[in-house]
Amino acid sequence: MLFKLHTFGESHGAGVGGIIDGCPPGIEIDFDALQNQVNRRRPGQSALVTPRKESDQVEFLSGLVDNVSTGAPIAFLVRNENQQSSDYDALKDVFRPSHADYTYQVKYGIRDHRGGGRSSARETVSRVIAGAIAGQILQKENIRVSAFVTQIGPIKASAITNLPSLEEVDSNAVRCPDSLVAKNMISYLETLLDAGDTSGGIIQVIVEGVPAGLGEPVFDKLHADIGKAMLSINAVKGFEFGSGFEAAAMKGSEHNDSFYTDTEGKVRTKTNFSGGVQGGISNGEQITFKIAFKPVASIKTEQETITKDGYVKNISIQGRHDPCVVPRAVPIVEGMTCLIILDHLLRARTINPNF
Amino acid sequence: MLFKLHTFGESHGAGVGGIIDGCPPGIEIDFDALQNQVNRRRPGQSALVTPRKESDQVEFLSGLVDNVSTGAPIAFLVRNENQQSSDYDALKDVFRPSHADYTYQVKYGIRDHRGGGRSSARETVSRVIAGAIAGQILQKENIRVSAFVTQIGPIKASAITNLPSLEEVDSNAVRCPDSLVAKNMISYLETLLDAGDTSGGIIQVIVEGVPAGLGEPVFDKLHADIGKAMLSINAVKGFEFGSGFEAAAMKGSEHNDSFYTDTEGKVRTKTNFSGGVQGGISNGEQITFKIAFKPVASIKTEQETITKDGYVKNISIQGRHDPCVVPRAVPIVEGMTCLIILDHLLRARTINPNF
Amino acid sequence: MLFKLHTFGESHGAGVGGIIDGCPPGIEIDFDALQNQVNRRRPGQSALVTPRKESDQVEFLSGLVDNVSTGAPIAFLVRNENQQSSDYDALKDVFRPSHADYTYQVKYGIRDHRGGGRSSARETVSRVIAGAIAGQILQKENIRVSAFVTQIGPIKASAITNLPSLEEVDSNAVRCPDSLVAKNMISYLETLLDAGDTSGGIIQVIVEGVPAGLGEPVFDKLHADIGKAMLSINAVKGFEFGSGFEAAAMKGSEHNDSFYTDTEGKVRTKTNFSGGVQGGISNGEQITFKIAFKPVASIKTEQETITKDGYVKNISIQGRHDPCVVPRAVPIVEGMTCLIILDHLLRARTINPNF
Amino acid sequence: MLFKLHTFGESHGAGVGGIIDGCPPGIEIDFDALQNQVNRRRPGQSALVTPRKESDQVEFLSGLVDNVSTGAPIAFLVRNENQQSSDYDALKDVFRPSHADYTYQVKYGIRDHRGGGRSSARETVSRVIAGAIAGQILQKENIRVSAFVTQIGPIKASAITNLPSLEEVDSNAVRCPDSLVAKNMISYLETLLDAGDTSGGIIQVIVEGVPAGLGEPVFDKLHADIGKAMLSINAVKGFEFGSGFEAAAMKGSEHNDSFYTDTEGKVRTKTNFSGGVQGGISNGEQITFKIAFKPVASIKTEQETITKDGYVKNISIQGRHDPCVVPRAVPIVEGMTCLIILDHLLRARTINPNF
Repeated sequence: MLFKLHTFGESHGAGVGGIIDGCPPGIEIDFDALQNQVNRRRPGQSALVTPRKESDQVEFLSGLVDNVSTGAPIAFLVRNENQQSSDYDALKDVFRPSHADYTYQVKYGIRDHRGGGRSSARETVSRVIAGAIAGQILQKENIRVSAFVTQIGPIKASAITNLPSLEEVDSNAVRCPDSLVAKNMISYLETLLDAGDTSGGIIQVIVEGVPAGLGEPVFDKLHADIGKAMLSINAVKGFEFGSGFEAAAMKGSEHNDSFYTDTEGKVRTKTNFSGGVQGGISNGEQITFKIAFKPVASIKTEQETITKDGYVKNISIQGRHDPCVVPRAVPIVEGMTCLIILDHLLRARTINPNF
Repeated sequence: MLFKLHTFGESHGAGVGGIIDGCPPGIEIDFDALQNQVNRRRPGQSALVTPRKESDQVEFLSGLVDNVSTGAPIAFLVRNENQQSSDYDALKDVFRPSHADYTYQVKYGIRDHRGGGRSSARETVSRVIAGAIAGQILQKENIRVSAFVTQIGPIKASAITNLPSLEEVDSNAVRCPDSLVAKNMISYLETLLDAGDTSGGIIQVIVEGVPAGLGEPVFDKLHADIGKAMLSINAVKGFEFGSGFEAAAMKGSEHNDSFYTDTEGKVRTKTNFSGGVQGGISNGEQITFKIAFKPVASIKTEQETITKDGYVKNISIQGRHDPCVVPRAVPIVEGMTCLIILDHLLRARTINPNF
Repeated sequence: MLFKLHTFGESHGAGVGGIIDGCPPGIEIDFDALQNQVNRRRPGQSALVTPRKESDQVEFLSGLVDNVSTGAPIAFLVRNENQQSSDYDALKDVFRPSHADYTYQVKYGIRDHRGGGRSSARETVSRVIAGAIAGQILQKENIRVSAFVTQIGPIKASAITNLPSLEEVDSNAVRCPDSLVAKNMISYLETLLDAGDTSGGIIQVIVEGVPAGLGEPVFDKLHADIGKAMLSINAVKGFEFGSGFEAAAMKGSEHNDSFYTDTEGKVRTKTNFSGGVQGGISNGEQITFKIAFKPVASIKTEQETITKDGYVKNISIQGRHDPCVVPRAVPIVEGMTCLIILDHLLRARTINPNF
Repeated sequence: MLFKLHTFGESHGAGVGGIIDGCPPGIEIDFDALQNQVNRRRPGQSALVTPRKESDQVEFLSGLVDNVSTGAPIAFLVRNENQQSSDYDALKDVFRPSHADYTYQVKYGIRDHRGGGRSSARETVSRVIAGAIAGQILQKENIRVSAFVTQIGPIKASAITNLPSLEEVDSNAVRCPDSLVAKNMISYLETLLDAGDTSGGIIQVIVEGVPAGLGEPVFDKLHADIGKAMLSINAVKGFEFGSGFEAAAMKGSEHNDSFYTDTEGKVRTKTNFSGGVQGGISNGEQITFKIAFKPVASIKTEQETITKDGYVKNISIQGRHDPCVVPRAVPIVEGMTCLIILDHLLRARTINPNF
């Protein structure tokens, strides 16, 4: 990797942050736009998300002079503010179902139980910050990334093939560009919230403006790196790009994307079942993929589990939790997408400086 | 990565092969079992696969003394034999639809057009070989990996939750453990073969015996690394593990896997929507995931495309091609799975030597 | 690398710090000992070093619970306090001789001119901190690392073959365990200080207790990784281990280290021209090496140079600079040594859990 | 690393070889020049080197079409021919002094004893091959690398500051451009050969044409990466660049390299104690460094050692060995230098496509 993010931090420690290695020099950072992207992930945005109070103010520690990158590592820190660690005392020795409590304990022999510690989705703040910087660099190259919600529980939007604007995505609390479907999603989540239950969902991503030629042909295929990045986000259970799982039922004669030359002499394909990537390398078409999220594991409903010492214990998880993560996961997904695409853009330059 | 495969080779060059770095010393390789796994990927196994004649004999070049690994890099080579490069002369300047011809050309400015060159699935021979070595090491740790076909075109098998034996998987030409469904799949493929068309499909993987504690908690989550490995295989369009895309429609109260202690004192979960991984780390349950493959792009049906110089040209791809890759992809999928799990097993030992 | 340090920060920015990836869990950090090691590098310790006032208090941001490592990334931050950036205004557009001003400018097209920015030795604070953590882990394995000064300018100590204690090394301002030689070094530096000039020097390192078997056999030889680590320290011009450059004049019959078995049955060598490493792998003997440092480039003496725009300009570098870096480089050298040895210890465990 | 070599092979196995990842596409390889460089390392060139007969014919297995690189991995193989493994039967259970027999045994618990197995300098054939390809790419960028011998045993050449031609270097059997000194070196080695003894030596490298701006500023400093590469070569004990160990005795007022602008407007330095690198980044001056080699450990003189089981045993190493490795190490040193410089050239392009 050439543009590389290293992250640190726990839910209830001093804070979260990271170091970006490999940021090109001479990039002027728009801090307002960056903070706005961070705020899109922040808790407390609507009645549907956890009311945990975090201002999530990003402090940059290095790598910039007068808001311009120097090529040195860019470090940043977001201090935790609303640490109610005592909330978690009751859960100190309990393995919460479908959380990472047990696996951390068995792997490390020790764990920071406060709010999930390192396994908390609070870690993703760092990804949004680094991803926003990557996104600003991509914007200068006319590469646009948009993530949005297409399914929450049983409520699904119809196919979306045009890249929606930020305003369209953020026009409602669930970040679904289809406002009618969004209403149904919101109703569904309100019902779940009352019941102390949670829902899964699906986010779709469209990327436009990626030049043909990004991606490595074998192990680091562009879509394989994007897929790994998506699967590394908390609660993600599936990834598909282009035709995805539907490809399994299709015939070659239906699925092949015919090439043609457009009026500007650019090589294009008539359809885009490939999702913008062929042989692991971008072909200049829209890059499009979907990510499935499981329902939030923290539910108020009583559940049976065991303690660290193997005793059965019934728990009901109180505290501040979202009924569904996907609306707040939108900027995380965008950030991770930007990180991968920028990295492959820089890689491509080692072969061809015209990228 | 600690167990790392580097591969080389093209479809119609001297051959394909690789170097394995990080193989633990003192491992006795069972060459017959290894060659058998290679043979499962080999062309010419049945009427449903390409009749290209390749003996695919593996020559080991280093890293072994008396069939035992020394800890030095293990290099291997499979020479290409059945190189009918002239078959491809007609396609030299044509971009085949949904192949990597165009993207390689634009990325590198040069490409080996013979049989797809580096983009050919022939490259995966190396993955099967390295994966077979990894698999033999995992076997000694009682970790068992099984891949099998659950869907070809519209024909789907019912849910399979028990790890099938190699014999069960290989009992039919499509490698579907459900023999009745397999018959339908075969009929379907025979029809497509007659029509010069091709089909997509789905492979499922079950891994048993993975101890709790494998996987890195943030970017290199166990399922993220597996997902990337799968998406790096030619023709793969989607990856889901555990509940996968179905999780999107589920509620937390349905999806959570309750912990309990079994009669041997082992921590277990009552359900396994998590697919054996929680917070990126294995929890000791069955690891299970599915991979979607697109239909083979080489079809006999006439297609419209363009040449390197932008001229429209109609082509019909002759030569030796499978109507569906998934039966032959089974050992590739197994191999890549073994590579990732062994790598994470070695990584876990740096933290806890008991792994 | 398994124990990996990422650093950030500039001389006159917000601060310096880093993230340690791969620290084993369950390690209790002795913060006093760590801060003491940081203080050994700190300016203002004696009349011979820069009086820049920095308290260099280390703040840990993550990866620890009750002072014990959890296996998560350990982030730390040392804020800059004594930033007199205006001192450097006069040098903003000047390339100081034998500094990195010109090379940064030409590489990045932009540079943080304040105190050398990223190229400042202030960056090494982070190495001392991470190295101190590594050192505490090595101590538990009975591996002891000691660095000390053996030459400053023309003043050289006689051969030192026994690992000196921390007290012996720190018994004088130049950190030379030979107290008589130390006096001469101090006199020499006082003379230079009066003249506004500076001196080079040599640091020797002795490591005891490293088990046989650490190091990779080809590219990542133990001494190659140590050598790179040393050469990555500011002002280092040379590295030699064991017999070093003297080996060039020797015969095989003189240089070979004969093996024998000691009274405890341990394999030993009678001499140690190998410096504790053979074929890139430790052999259980003392690891010993030397590092040459150039004289500090910031001198008060007037020098001719050019500006960014190519004009000739005479400069005399005022401000706070050491006449010789080697005394303060001792903890940096120790830190980098510990980082490499711990990394190779963890790597060795992937092959043999008994390490 | 962007231009990355992976190697394999043992002294008496099937052969040695490697894979080059990251070779830019469109490079036409001059196979004759490449084979010539391999031949410079080959045994049997003169009375002073081992008469082991190896034709060292390089077979390329992938990554090239019509001698032009395609951007795919370039794999190559050199088969071992003159394998007299039985020569080594007597040494099977003996730890030869100052060889890697003991350290391999203790690290891996198993070793290929035939000719040193993986620890044999035969492994460096692969480095010469990959380095020759890198060198051909650098040549197109007008970057010239020359290594030559400046010391064998007590015989030293005077300072050499001009890059010698290949003809000058190869004008005598010891590859010392000073032909009078070369004669003395040859006499010295002839005497040692008669006595069954061996000698150390020093190789110097001069690189011209490297643009300012190559190298990473902190851990991957250009000279740190070169130093590691040199220290990874068998028998190397020391590395110094520019002023090297002599810098320790110098004053800042002597050592600083003053900047000036030459008649073509290029930024230059009046002296070059920096050795062409400042702050880890090339400054456009000659890059110059020296490498110390220990004497060959295989001597005919009887030596005391121990067996694997701890018994004392006297040995006298017969067979085919050089009295001094440095003449044959010249192409290895050149190769490793080219690998590092090309890698940093590619890295620099990710920041600035004009490199």
